[in-house]
Amino acid sequence: MNTYGIVFRVSLFGESHGHAIGVTIDGCPSGLSLKTGDFKSDLARRKSGSKGTTPRLEGDLPEIISGVKDGFTTGAPVTVITRNAEMDSSVYNDVLATPRPGHADFVAKVKYSGFSDHRGGGHFSGRITWGLVVAGVIAKKILHPLRIGANIIEAGGSKDIDSAIEAALKSGDTIGGIIECKVENPPVGLGEPFFYSAESAISHLVFSIPAVKGIEFGSGFASAGMKGSEHNDPIVDETGKTSSNNAGGINGGITNGNELVFRIVVKPTSSTGIEQKTFNFEKKEMTFFKVTGRHDACIALRIPVIAEAAVAIALTDLLMIDRGIHGVRG
Amino acid sequence: MNTYGIVFRVSLFGESHGHAIGVTIDGCPSGLSLKTGDFKSDLARRKSGSKGTTPRLEGDLPEIISGVKDGFTTGAPVTVITRNAEMDSSVYNDVLATPRPGHADFVAKVKYSGFSDHRGGGHFSGRITWGLVVAGVIAKKILHPLRIGANIIEAGGSKDIDSAIEAALKSGDTIGGIIECKVENPPVGLGEPFFYSAESAISHLVFSIPAVKGIEFGSGFASAGMKGSEHNDPIVDETGKTSSNNAGGINGGITNGNELVFRIVVKPTSSTGIEQKTFNFEKKEMTFFKVTGRHDACIALRIPVIAEAAVAIALTDLLMIDRGIHGVRG
Amino acid sequence: MNTYGIVFRVSLFGESHGHAIGVTIDGCPSGLSLKTGDFKSDLARRKSGSKGTTPRLEGDLPEIISGVKDGFTTGAPVTVITRNAEMDSSVYNDVLATPRPGHADFVAKVKYSGFSDHRGGGHFSGRITWGLVVAGVIAKKILHPLRIGANIIEAGGSKDIDSAIEAALKSGDTIGGIIECKVENPPVGLGEPFFYSAESAISHLVFSIPAVKGIEFGSGFASAGMKGSEHNDPIVDETGKTSSNNAGGINGGITNGNELVFRIVVKPTSSTGIEQKTFNFEKKEMTFFKVTGRHDACIALRIPVIAEAAVAIALTDLLMIDRGIHGVRG
Amino acid sequence: MNTYGIVFRVSLFGESHGHAIGVTIDGCPSGLSLKTGDFKSDLARRKSGSKGTTPRLEGDLPEIISGVKDGFTTGAPVTVITRNAEMDSSVYNDVLATPRPGHADFVAKVKYSGFSDHRGGGHFSGRITWGLVVAGVIAKKILHPLRIGANIIEAGGSKDIDSAIEAALKSGDTIGGIIECKVENPPVGLGEPFFYSAESAISHLVFSIPAVKGIEFGSGFASAGMKGSEHNDPIVDETGKTSSNNAGGINGGITNGNELVFRIVVKPTSSTGIEQKTFNFEKKEMTFFKVTGRHDACIALRIPVIAEAAVAIALTDLLMIDRGIHGVRG
Repeated sequence: MNTYGIVFRVSLFGESHGHAIGVTIDGCPSGLSLKTGDFKSDLARRKSGSKGTTPRLEGDLPEIISGVKDGFTTGAPVTVITRNAEMDSSVYNDVLATPRPGHADFVAKVKYSGFSDHRGGGHFSGRITWGLVVAGVIAKKILHPLRIGANIIEAGGSKDIDSAIEAALKSGDTIGGIIECKVENPPVGLGEPFFYSAESAISHLVFSIPAVKGIEFGSGFASAGMKGSEHNDPIVDETGKTSSNNAGGINGGITNGNELVFRIVVKPTSSTGIEQKTFNFEKKEMTFFKVTGRHDACIALRIPVIAEAAVAIALTDLLMIDRGIHGVRG
Repeated sequence: MNTYGIVFRVSLFGESHGHAIGVTIDGCPSGLSLKTGDFKSDLARRKSGSKGTTPRLEGDLPEIISGVKDGFTTGAPVTVITRNAEMDSSVYNDVLATPRPGHADFVAKVKYSGFSDHRGGGHFSGRITWGLVVAGVIAKKILHPLRIGANIIEAGGSKDIDSAIEAALKSGDTIGGIIECKVENPPVGLGEPFFYSAESAISHLVFSIPAVKGIEFGSGFASAGMKGSEHNDPIVDETGKTSSNNAGGINGGITNGNELVFRIVVKPTSSTGIEQKTFNFEKKEMTFFKVTGRHDACIALRIPVIAEAAVAIALTDLLMIDRGIHGVRG
Repeated sequence: MNTYGIVFRVSLFGESHGHAIGVTIDGCPSGLSLKTGDFKSDLARRKSGSKGTTPRLEGDLPEIISGVKDGFTTGAPVTVITRNAEMDSSVYNDVLATPRPGHADFVAKVKYSGFSDHRGGGHFSGRITWGLVVAGVIAKKILHPLRIGANIIEAGGSKDIDSAIEAALKSGDTIGGIIECKVENPPVGLGEPFFYSAESAISHLVFSIPAVKGIEFGSGFASAGMKGSEHNDPIVDETGKTSSNNAGGINGGITNGNELVFRIVVKPTSSTGIEQKTFNFEKKEMTFFKVTGRHDACIALRIPVIAEAAVAIALTDLLMIDRGIHGVRG
Repeated sequence: MNTYGIVFRVSLFGESHGHAIGVTIDGCPSGLSLKTGDFKSDLARRKSGSKGTTPRLEGDLPEIISGVKDGFTTGAPVTVITRNAEMDSSVYNDVLATPRPGHADFVAKVKYSGFSDHRGGGHFSGRITWGLVVAGVIAKKILHPLRIGANIIEAGGSKDIDSAIEAALKSGDTIGGIIECKVENPPVGLGEPFFYSAESAISHLVFSIPAVKGIEFGSGFASAGMKGSEHNDPIVDETGKTSSNNAGGINGGITNGNELVFRIVVKPTSSTGIEQKTFNFEKKEMTFFKVTGRHDACIALRIPVIAEAAVAIALTDLLMIDRGIHGVRG
């Protein structure tokens, strides 16, 4: 179930400490200009290395192994991979006996009867989102000139994000955050009733990003405390522009042409420097342990570009579905 | 795109004021006891008629037209329909000229080039969730004895829901609400990386319910203000039980056997008794209008049973995918 | 798994002697003129009643229950059903004990643990193809003015089909036949490598028709005895027209703009008036039996319009996939 | 559309003269023993090099880049690739101007607006079936101990295949062939009405193999000349064994436990040493040309192992669907 999409299909593969990770994009139109350099900027934004992110420096150089010839997509599936560099997997030896709380260690052991690759989180690792960002770059090209932008707007409960990171680093603990993502003036009409509403498609993808635990569109959870007369966004002109945007640009599951706005919450990184308790399945008793591997103080810092990729992929697929059924608009 | 599911597939059809609405459930195992009476209780919970819901009394009697013989499912697709009773569609004549804010009138007109059935919201109507509840009843039978329960925990920004409804009715305006849904002790291992996490599946379905604008799992948006050492749920025994449940029963997108918990926010009903503004596409000017049709003061009141159906359908499909790949557990 | 299609999706439901049978067409564009009368001609061609077909006269009147308003499709799923008239199911009481050879009685009993509806073949009945013909009528409208035509070209091993039927009726036995289907000048470019070749899509649908046991495109099985220099179709002008058509209008799985030609073989009707042997599962011994229900002497006579529907549905879906990815052509 | 399968999903990527070709297998259970050596025997059978096949010697060494750890599948997607060795693409420079008859040159140019990779057939190349064979090896492991075997039974219209190849090589022309594939004693119950009949699934995959132009099950096209009393296979014992096998082991689209038998026809290799005519799109006139690249005198020789892979993949997916819905059988 590692594929998302009806017409524009993104498939992810790979494990954190395996040979390589990668992505296949199927349903990509031919004639799209595409070079490895095109991935550089978005992959850099996802990358670790800055303050508050893990010091593991991934090479991450993308290699296009199919679907592109002479700098243009051929119409065949585009597969992009990156080799995993040598890394120290020994720190993960204990996770089968003492599964780390907050991680997928326990569920993976049960689901895959002990055969899953637990090193670095294996296929559950945030590292797998590398391929999502690569697919997002292609989706953004297809949606061009649509502008998609995401930012972290809160970390550790504070709007002063720098200070929050600073404090987290000092404490050795980790913090969560909130990301806001906006799409400027999308076309009217993307999204399908009943089961591929724009919100369904976007949330489906967004909840594939490890550590995301919530999403809200427009005024979101605050809507519960609003009146209908207050929440409804009055239409003010023939293009469907509204004078407020509590709907976050979506009515009835369909984009209404106004700015698409959603926020996602990212839990604090599960690997924290603080001593924790878990069950030791060998000794059959509770035990204390401390994560010694590298980790991000605030994994949310790396999520904005992944959220952009998620919404770009979702909208591209919805665009192709709508175009498939109804032809090109206006 | 009116079908959800990989193995257990639910397809919805129908329009609010058309001849009939219905649902087809494919991938339903044979030998399941099923009678029209089985739908009664859940359909009654979804029904309008109580304080704060529209006075339109839907007959809603389900007719099973295929897939059941002598009270048991046959293994063929189960289709259940209900006829729409005669109703007054004349009040919807104006929505093409003056699309109601908060509704799908404008987007439907654009997406379907004026051909969509706008009466009562057509295929965008909350009425279409009738089929979701029917499918949910079947999914609950398959998941038996798993216990799923949802309740409204907040309305109009208040925990005192009765008073909030009372006040809304008095004001003629509408209010939103928050629903909490819990699944007791689900099996460990439901959910698929990378794109069918339990959260992805549930949110995909939940955002198909009209008026839902947000979802959060476990401690959800509050996670952003927590530390990792605080958010991580320590595992305390061999079954994977945790001493806290900030994860809402899901790690790495996979159910961990603890209570599955999520909350959804429902915006205030778009049809409100208060006068509103919108654009008049015929006169090309802003205009005032007032909804005269029947409506729910707080549509959230009708959502709990639909949220239960959504999670039941999502989990049934995930169970069948896992069983298909790995066989029956333990 | 009762749904076919990626963008243009056809779902069938119902059982031969159940309450009703039907079809849901999702991904149908809005604004298509559609009335129940539109189905009349194709449904009549599928109908029993003529010489060599079962004397059971199905009413078959289609009822559109969703997706159409004022004679035009709305963009919502189109569901069409027909009620099953009262019929005598008593003749099928024995099929669980003595499954009829050639029929699905035995496999259905095993697959559905005895719960399948065996009356009249249940969901395995050729009657279910009614919905395929209905969907085919809609697909033909979308493909308009593309011309699709199928005919029976051989029955009981003879090109003189009338005599073959006559002889079969006299003998009380049944005969098979071969259907040829042609699509005049389809657009170039329909079909997707690697797994949705035009041949894959068409054959997938065609083998859903009960009694079909083979399909060949262009020169088909005769190709095995040809030379490459003889089989290759020389391109003779800029439109891609070829001077021969051994490929049946498809190269590399993609329509090449020349006439699309395929043939399917239909086995003789399994229900024959001749006494046969089968195993009696109650007495645990071989037994003789004779089918007493009504049946077609040559079921192939009813297949041409179903084959047309199959190819129309396949091409519509391929057209929508291609248009979704690449936009509208030329 | 380069993915096949509902639960067991096979995705192909790559182009004949690109960097690499490969396959991703998703829905593969964890704990399956898998080493690169396991692919050796089937890949060798597919390989060119023997009499009647192209002298191009592909290295074809498979590299498993994900989904396997310490010799066992992890439950994550299995991706296997092989690098394309350096090869001479210059001979393909002319195919845009003078598309080769029988090949996909013309349709690819139109479908992908001139951007497709035409070198060696690009993504349309038979070389892409390498990944199908790799996936087939894994499917066969899952189906173990089911025995699947395919052989060429006719070439150039003759049962004496060696002589036929000899003659073809001498003439410089190419010949077609017929492959027969058998599956011994499959489980009863694989296949889903209405749209995933065993025949639909198998034919869907088989028509993805380049050069296949027909398929027939059991007595196939010969059924058209049989009587019903003759074609029906009498059931002779409680396991459903039949005394004849005209059905090819499938009734009502479902495997009946008897030997599954089908035959496919492979057209003569399109690249022949004989001079041919085609249209020159630059000069706008007919032109003569001769293929100078390496080619197979009888491509059918390489197809048996690919046909085995196709049926193995189809049956594995059907098995997982059935198990997902109904649990493990008996």
